[in-house]
Amino acid sequence: MSIFNSPNAFADPEDSQLVADAKKARADPVEYSYTERDVILYNLGVGATAKELQWVFEGDDEFGVLPTFGVVPQFAASSGLSLDWLPNFNPAKLLHGEQYLSIKAPIPTSGELVNEVRLMEVLDKGKAAAVTTIVETRDKRSGKVIFENQSTVFIRGAGGFGGKRTGNDRGAASAANAPPKRSPDAVMEEKTSPSQAALYRLSGDSNPLHILPEFAAIGGFDQPILHGLCSMGIAAKHVLKTFGRYSDIKVRFAGVVYPGETIVTEMWKEGGKVIFSAKVKERGTTVLAAAAATLVDSTVKAKL
Amino acid sequence: MSIFNSPNAFADPEDSQLVADAKKARADPVEYSYTERDVILYNLGVGATAKELQWVFEGDDEFGVLPTFGVVPQFAASSGLSLDWLPNFNPAKLLHGEQYLSIKAPIPTSGELVNEVRLMEVLDKGKAAAVTTIVETRDKRSGKVIFENQSTVFIRGAGGFGGKRTGNDRGAASAANAPPKRSPDAVMEEKTSPSQAALYRLSGDSNPLHILPEFAAIGGFDQPILHGLCSMGIAAKHVLKTFGRYSDIKVRFAGVVYPGETIVTEMWKEGGKVIFSAKVKERGTTVLAAAAATLVDSTVKAKL
Repeated sequence: MSIFNSPNAFADPEDSQLVADAKKARADPVEYSYTERDVILYNLGVGATAKELQWVFEGDDEFGVLPTFGVVPQFAASSGLSLDWLPNFNPAKLLHGEQYLSIKAPIPTSGELVNEVRLMEVLDKGKAAAVTTIVETRDKRSGKVIFENQSTVFIRGAGGFGGKRTGNDRGAASAANAPPKRSPDAVMEEKTSPSQAALYRLSGDSNPLHILPEFAAIGGFDQPILHGLCSMGIAAKHVLKTFGRYSDIKVRFAGVVYPGETIVTEMWKEGGKVIFSAKVKERGTTVLAAAAATLVDSTVKAKL
Repeated sequence: MSIFNSPNAFADPEDSQLVADAKKARADPVEYSYTERDVILYNLGVGATAKELQWVFEGDDEFGVLPTFGVVPQFAASSGLSLDWLPNFNPAKLLHGEQYLSIKAPIPTSGELVNEVRLMEVLDKGKAAAVTTIVETRDKRSGKVIFENQSTVFIRGAGGFGGKRTGNDRGAASAANAPPKRSPDAVMEEKTSPSQAALYRLSGDSNPLHILPEFAAIGGFDQPILHGLCSMGIAAKHVLKTFGRYSDIKVRFAGVVYPGETIVTEMWKEGGKVIFSAKVKERGTTVLAAAAATLVDSTVKAKL
């Protein structure tokens, strides 16, 4: 049974009245339809190559979507939840902090999905608010849950409203995922295309931050930045190619990638988990931190 | 008034009975809907870059589609016309020979179009048949003609049926377009991406020849080839960037590009026309020949 069926599933006695009221708000379900063409477009958007027929050719026997596609159908639902009730809310001060994705059933290569969003957790970090939404994505016909996403955003300048300061343990979604001290068990690197963000945004996140230099400048960036979820998709593809399928994945967005830069993913296999981090080769900046994926088959060895 | 309103517009007393009968066949109009996302996808497919905001960002004041998009809405209509009536017809022996596109009205950035196709000319080349289809593409609501396309395909092994051997003069569509003896007035080169065909095929031509190595091998190619219409789009973009808008464009497909190779477009301005050709830098092969575009403003000088 879904946690979504319980009206007070995310109620917390430590919440302030402001947060308790916000958690009661309900948003309409958001539908998302997609075709094999959208699948290929997503895969190309996270750097699948023309030789990877299982990801770019609908006629291939193994044709399918990269699992991080799971963040796409829920995107409008998750980012559509109003945060106006936060004190001093300013959307320009919003940063995507963390993403957790659980893949709960095989992903159709086309279909109609329905997303339900709820406000899951709101933390008062003093200068900022940290808001976590949870979205359940179901197959419209069968009702089967395909994905669960948890997205945490930070809104600078919107803290100080007297809410709770630290979160509940949410398992894989909040695990620390510190890399072991040893050298990585596997490393993959991939040069992104200068057009990577222009292509990725066709999968649904058309924020001008990722294409318009003037808008990126307002955000304090020298040039348009790659979508954090695109970097996640690229690093997750490295995990998949190295260790095989995973059932959930979690990342913290620690820095930005400029389209055209090279993403280096370092991976450590720890039992049934792959702990990983990603950095930009050209600048040494860490991009994804505290990241991990839970393997479907924990007995696999690195393929590289 | 459209030539399409005349039932016998393409009748020719020199036609054999076989061809005369084929010309009488009518196909249902084919609808094509598109959005700004399809526009961007096409533009990226012919190599528009992230910095060319007018082609990749729907919020740009100058946002629009590259004019060669005109070959996309008609593609299903043109390639859907049955050629089964040709003796020894084999679709695997079909080669796209020439393309003529006329842009008759401003191109909407989204909309619903309707395509009407007719068989225009069939030539008996002895060993091959040369078949030209004509498609008129209209805005569904206003009825206004936006594009006219003429596509010539050669079907090897399907000649010898006793039809006429040489075509009628169809103006810009059949002009010789021989480059002058002097050095080109302008040259542009562009390296295609190894994923260029994988991306371009999302605009509607999903022939496995452009993605599946085994299928390309059957066609006699070492690897999947770029779509001829994609090469045309890239070279036409070079003409546009150098000399500005054109009202029609015609190319002959003379050779293939492998995704990842560099296309070099050589251009000569001759009055109101730009005569051009395109070759692959790495192999010296000519790709587009006998090509020309009619400029909207014939007084422009090369911008490069």
